[in-house]
Amino acid sequence: MDKTNVLVTGLSGGVGSIVGKFLGSKYKMSGLDLSPSQGFKTHIADLSNLDAIRPAFTNQDVVVHLGADPRGEAPWDSVLKNNIVGTYNVLEASREAGVKRVVFASTNHVVGYIPATQTPYREIFEGELDKVRRPFPLISSNAVRPCCYYAVGKSFGESIGSLYNDKYGLSFIGIRIGGVLQEPDWQVRQKGGLSMWLSHRDAAQIIERSIDAPYSVGFTIVYGMSGNSLRVHEIETAEKILGYKPEDDAGDTFSCDIHNQPEYLNIAH
Amino acid sequence: MDKTNVLVTGLSGGVGSIVGKFLGSKYKMSGLDLSPSQGFKTHIADLSNLDAIRPAFTNQDVVVHLGADPRGEAPWDSVLKNNIVGTYNVLEASREAGVKRVVFASTNHVVGYIPATQTPYREIFEGELDKVRRPFPLISSNAVRPCCYYAVGKSFGESIGSLYNDKYGLSFIGIRIGGVLQEPDWQVRQKGGLSMWLSHRDAAQIIERSIDAPYSVGFTIVYGMSGNSLRVHEIETAEKILGYKPEDDAGDTFSCDIHNQPEYLNIAH
Repeated sequence: MDKTNVLVTGLSGGVGSIVGKFLGSKYKMSGLDLSPSQGFKTHIADLSNLDAIRPAFTNQDVVVHLGADPRGEAPWDSVLKNNIVGTYNVLEASREAGVKRVVFASTNHVVGYIPATQTPYREIFEGELDKVRRPFPLISSNAVRPCCYYAVGKSFGESIGSLYNDKYGLSFIGIRIGGVLQEPDWQVRQKGGLSMWLSHRDAAQIIERSIDAPYSVGFTIVYGMSGNSLRVHEIETAEKILGYKPEDDAGDTFSCDIHNQPEYLNIAH
Repeated sequence: MDKTNVLVTGLSGGVGSIVGKFLGSKYKMSGLDLSPSQGFKTHIADLSNLDAIRPAFTNQDVVVHLGADPRGEAPWDSVLKNNIVGTYNVLEASREAGVKRVVFASTNHVVGYIPATQTPYREIFEGELDKVRRPFPLISSNAVRPCCYYAVGKSFGESIGSLYNDKYGLSFIGIRIGGVLQEPDWQVRQKGGLSMWLSHRDAAQIIERSIDAPYSVGFTIVYGMSGNSLRVHEIETAEKILGYKPEDDAGDTFSCDIHNQPEYLNIAH
């Protein structure tokens, strides 16, 4: 069987590098990026320029759209250009080229302003772990409560993805990615990170499952966290719809405490 | 007591004219628009130009933000400029000027792609009204399913409104407005309109209640429909939070049938 053609925007970035390392040989993978990734054909162009990015989409089956200003504190002008216009351009180029699915890197920040008091997040942070293990309602993906322009841009991406699925039949899977650390063996250094952590191999797995899921999935939004004991976001939708089975758990210990206790789930400063 | 200072963007437009007619004397009202409205001081500027609109926000208590490309079929470039950038600019100018609340004209189109089969909408359209009157779950304001770029832009407005409330304490009330006809005595001419109709005086009332509600309301999204017998969207949130009590009901008869039966709640073509 021929390999699936997968175009990855932002292949040279943080999550992109993980995708290249874990999945680069499984698919016929290429990049669309501002800079090349070693070992991959890369189309160099700015996502905010629709004409310039179009050629990269020819004959692609699935587009993994990671390219964005990834900073939680990104200013409006950059979010507008890189994340809002960039995501419209990626969807439009995908539609024009007959791409079957876009896998979109959304973020836990789209619900970052949910008060900690609505979850056991404060107890996690304060180390009152016996209080956390009781059953509690997990944050689901129904409503958004963005913490920053970055999250507003990602929420926009989810919304326009819904339109492209309904109107054009372009399958769209949005993954609200948790906390991915730069190196695979780094330990979680913030207590809140015990809840949100997504290991490198779990990140690769949920993206792989999103690429491979039947196109009949159509549209869905899922959370992408590892199987953390102290999780407050639901990954049951990802398990049910995509078959995601995380292999890692951040556990309930942490190496140091660098934050004050948070009022909200995850505010980007 | 001094009148509340209310700035209305798009005061000369369809809903804006209703606001001016019904509420123009209750508040100290002015307009921010591309063209003047008779009887009101109007600051003439384009919402996509932050520098140009700033002066209109000085000393305003509440901004009613109606100004936008109002066409369901508006192309992306216009939605981006007028509705996305325009709404960011209105929120940012409001924040800078210390405005206490923005009342935002959202739209039923943000859930327009919900399949008719999930509601009694098809039965309404087919005149099987006895099937409609049973209790059924009303469309709530949790999730979006936009029908068009126009609706994606309005969904963006709700999302960034949430941020400005959480981050800056700017109260934001988003009203997902139903179907407002041009003249107050026009009859509903589409069967689906029996569900979505919002009369002129009910439109004025829900905007008035949104202006007057305690600032402690903070952030909310409500549907704005009249008290239609064949309603499929919930107005219970607007009743509960804003005290909205619609006076009108589109009833269950219609004057003519100009549409085919719909597959979805409200697609803009």
